[in-house]
Amino acid sequence: MDTRESLILDAADINFCLYDWLDVESLTDLERYAEHSRETFDGLLDVSRQLSEDLFAPHNRTGDLNEPTLVDGKVQTIDEVKPALKAFADAGFLTATMDEEFGGFSLPATIYRAAFLWFQAANVGTVSYALLTTGAANLIRTHATEELQKKFLPPMLDGRWFGTMNLSEPGTGSALGDLTTAATKQEDGTYRLRGDKMWISGGDQEISENIVHLVLARTGGPGVKGLSLFIVPKWLGEPGNLTERNGVTLVGVNHKMGYRGTVNTALNYDDATGYLIGEEGRGLFYMFHMMNEARIGVGAGATALGVTGFLHSRDYARGRIQGRPLDAKDPKTPAVPIIRHADVRRMLLEQKAYAEGAVAVILYAAKVLDESVAASSPEERTAAHQLLEVLTPVAKSWPSQWCLEGNSLAIQVLGGSGYTRDYPVEQFYRDNRLNPIHEGTHGIQGLDLLGRKVLLDGGSGFRDLLGRITTTCDGLADSHPELADPLRSRTTRLAEVTAIAWEDKDAGTALSNATMYLEAAGDIIVAWLLADQVRALGEKTGSEDFAKSKLFTASFFIDHLLPRVDAQLDLVASKDRRLHDLDDALI
Amino acid sequence: MDTRESLILDAADINFCLYDWLDVESLTDLERYAEHSRETFDGLLDVSRQLSEDLFAPHNRTGDLNEPTLVDGKVQTIDEVKPALKAFADAGFLTATMDEEFGGFSLPATIYRAAFLWFQAANVGTVSYALLTTGAANLIRTHATEELQKKFLPPMLDGRWFGTMNLSEPGTGSALGDLTTAATKQEDGTYRLRGDKMWISGGDQEISENIVHLVLARTGGPGVKGLSLFIVPKWLGEPGNLTERNGVTLVGVNHKMGYRGTVNTALNYDDATGYLIGEEGRGLFYMFHMMNEARIGVGAGATALGVTGFLHSRDYARGRIQGRPLDAKDPKTPAVPIIRHADVRRMLLEQKAYAEGAVAVILYAAKVLDESVAASSPEERTAAHQLLEVLTPVAKSWPSQWCLEGNSLAIQVLGGSGYTRDYPVEQFYRDNRLNPIHEGTHGIQGLDLLGRKVLLDGGSGFRDLLGRITTTCDGLADSHPELADPLRSRTTRLAEVTAIAWEDKDAGTALSNATMYLEAAGDIIVAWLLADQVRALGEKTGSEDFAKSKLFTASFFIDHLLPRVDAQLDLVASKDRRLHDLDDALI
Repeated sequence: MDTRESLILDAADINFCLYDWLDVESLTDLERYAEHSRETFDGLLDVSRQLSEDLFAPHNRTGDLNEPTLVDGKVQTIDEVKPALKAFADAGFLTATMDEEFGGFSLPATIYRAAFLWFQAANVGTVSYALLTTGAANLIRTHATEELQKKFLPPMLDGRWFGTMNLSEPGTGSALGDLTTAATKQEDGTYRLRGDKMWISGGDQEISENIVHLVLARTGGPGVKGLSLFIVPKWLGEPGNLTERNGVTLVGVNHKMGYRGTVNTALNYDDATGYLIGEEGRGLFYMFHMMNEARIGVGAGATALGVTGFLHSRDYARGRIQGRPLDAKDPKTPAVPIIRHADVRRMLLEQKAYAEGAVAVILYAAKVLDESVAASSPEERTAAHQLLEVLTPVAKSWPSQWCLEGNSLAIQVLGGSGYTRDYPVEQFYRDNRLNPIHEGTHGIQGLDLLGRKVLLDGGSGFRDLLGRITTTCDGLADSHPELADPLRSRTTRLAEVTAIAWEDKDAGTALSNATMYLEAAGDIIVAWLLADQVRALGEKTGSEDFAKSKLFTASFFIDHLLPRVDAQLDLVASKDRRLHDLDDALI
Repeated sequence: MDTRESLILDAADINFCLYDWLDVESLTDLERYAEHSRETFDGLLDVSRQLSEDLFAPHNRTGDLNEPTLVDGKVQTIDEVKPALKAFADAGFLTATMDEEFGGFSLPATIYRAAFLWFQAANVGTVSYALLTTGAANLIRTHATEELQKKFLPPMLDGRWFGTMNLSEPGTGSALGDLTTAATKQEDGTYRLRGDKMWISGGDQEISENIVHLVLARTGGPGVKGLSLFIVPKWLGEPGNLTERNGVTLVGVNHKMGYRGTVNTALNYDDATGYLIGEEGRGLFYMFHMMNEARIGVGAGATALGVTGFLHSRDYARGRIQGRPLDAKDPKTPAVPIIRHADVRRMLLEQKAYAEGAVAVILYAAKVLDESVAASSPEERTAAHQLLEVLTPVAKSWPSQWCLEGNSLAIQVLGGSGYTRDYPVEQFYRDNRLNPIHEGTHGIQGLDLLGRKVLLDGGSGFRDLLGRITTTCDGLADSHPELADPLRSRTTRLAEVTAIAWEDKDAGTALSNATMYLEAAGDIIVAWLLADQVRALGEKTGSEDFAKSKLFTASFFIDHLLPRVDAQLDLVASKDRRLHDLDDALI
């Protein structure tokens, strides 16, 4: 792999994670990935780097400064988006993880996730169109009839038609059970949809020939059980012969603080023709089936911005000369690069820990997904899936929280310059602020983790997680007790606190402070993964500086940042119900 | 005072702080403030509210969307700025705290600070021009000759000429000792200035007739001791008869992420005529004399944005219906306002604590300033000044850090809507991101507090602070041990840790983790002030709901947030030097 320094991603870290830590090469022993080798993986990663450098990064700021606008009822985007996405599709990225029958090459999710980080770090706005298309295509491939697959998948996987997800409505974002868009079955088996949808990324644009909307709509009674999922194309007809405009109308374009490269829209469905996916009433189930992928995708986007923000601010701190060491009193002492100042180092090391920690959790989750797909027994598959369920809220929320904070620190390192649009870090910060909101807010991830995931399947996935952390601690007990001991004590405490939170079997009590629990669990999981990387270093040889830096980062995170979980876990353990019980008038 | 609910400020909280907590009415017993009464204070506060509602708030978003631009070499700003600033000047706000001889009415700083919060919350971009003008005028009034005062003060105090501060240069922001702009004395006693200045807010504009730049420039050798301070007007001549353009040229306008209503410029000085303030070599001393005021002003700006962000998001959370209580399983249960959800309450209460805590520290610092100005003995004045020195880095940094975080929480409460420019909270967040940067970065405040302020005058100011906290704890020991005990233990620990940090008398060791110390000290000081407000409630009567809400907020802050300082103080006490000692190659 090309591991030269870059300001987009830290290729050396990706290389280490994939090969030395997660040993993705071992996946090629499995039948599913037998065609692959380290060379094919590297080739794909290098193409990702190249495309992201050549076609995505150069228009990242242009896309921010020229957000999509409505001109004569059409969404106008900058010219650079289409060729970038075409090159992305032509290189096979839309189908990379799929089987050959769909034009894919069965790439492991771990490699795909790493490759995709290049694009997300270079230009999260542009590549989102591809992310949405792959997500929609995956859902159709998994749950729609063969007939619908034949109709919609080929043009989507060629990159001629893009996909979207239509969940939210103007009155309803997080509470999907209250959606009101209605679908009525017609004699020919199709449906007619009526209603308003909101926050639809890629909801209208002129980049692709057609748009394939996946739309949640009500076919039955109240609640989520009355929801079904539909394919609703913008245009009816075949690729190259789009005959009739379907009843989907662009109502407006949202004007966002960041993430401006991706158009975000309000849509109206009025007698729009839709094709049912799977069975009626199972719409949310199908959507949630994609949810782990989508949530980890959001975490990955946050991660990518955290990494590139760190690299940009480190680059600046190395070159920017200002100030003197703390003990230099003589004004004639030469000024030093600001990376020499303790507080600048703090801001860089925090960012480094957030960036590498986030990369670690994203790639680890992807590796668990690969293990589940390629499992040799149903038990193995179930176990991997259960672990992934527990990891998902953390893989979504931890990077969204801390890589955003990292981007704030990147601005701070640059000072006044960082606050201007002459440098890219302020855009990273604005772009990243979306990530704690979409695909389940930060608060919802807390409810998901403590309210559902740690309890799921009798707590199997959570026990597996605790066991894996313990294994890492055991492996480091002799060589690095300074990492193993503090990590072990927090892990024990996390298990205790989880039991205490639920000992009254009362959701109001357990979940009053679920967000604090989520944040503490996230820090512990990331500390574990960073420590586990140190363990892996012990077994591999490589650049000595790289190894020292890894160890330094892990130990910085564990000594300087991890202790913040103690107060959070104590609070959860106190079962303080005041947020649940309080009288609104006191706020 | 008009205490009706507003989305700009919480007038009831301001009213409580001023009269029930800080007892500003007692200032009217002092000779200096004898002309005042609660009625004159209230009158001024109500005018502030009115003006901010009528003339400042309405163009806050307009100013953001239409940032100042260069048209034919001139800075073009939106039309609404000039009449708003004129009304501000006409109401006497530019001179309010000054004596009658300057057209002022000797308003206590505490009242002025509270009044100014209205404008900062309504439109921080527009009111900054006034803030800069008052600051510059105060400096001229304090340090310049009577001749210079006569020449420059009247048009500044009338609001016809605006002021600026010129410290930074393109290569130098925080390290002022390296400034290179040079001033050469002429035979007529004036100076000629040459050099480049950067980050000059209000550095050029067509709103005022003239601009009075206060410029730091070098007259002597290296370091800060070679710096002198000059008045350099944009135009030479008299008000109404500006005859000649001085050698100050606009080089460019900075494009910022937020705070767009205030133009920020790069300037070039080429043979510009300047008038020396005070003595050569004392320039930085004069500037720093204004620094406490300027830093508290920045903290106040952050505070104002935190308060208005809280009020907007609370208003949204009360009205926005979505989701059901944790224990409601039936989808037919009616949906509830989101303020009923525990995590939304968490986000609102954190914001409330940040907003009220920041208001408390800003107004308390202003009250200490009033005590210093009106002190009846030199000892009292010195004591007040010493305390103010210790409070200043916290009054600057704590609101800048936590009211920014509060604005992020405000976005989160609004969800997708909060991320759009249809709602004001995203602008508050962008505007507020400047505050940890200017007037001494966050890291510099940490060095100032632990490296200078806690040691100053043998630690008198710091001991005074600790004593005042103890007094509050004593006062609450019986009625509210749940507040007093945790606060007392952290205060004791803060004192211990301060001594431990310096026990080796080595700056490298003491200051390696100065930012962590600053943040911990800030939380403890704010916890104290919120607890002290509860103490004050015990003595006063008022709305029962208001009192309950105050107690709830203080106790929420002390139970949920204050414990985070423990890990920070432990780290400082560990005297971990790794940030100081590390090899840059490891970052």
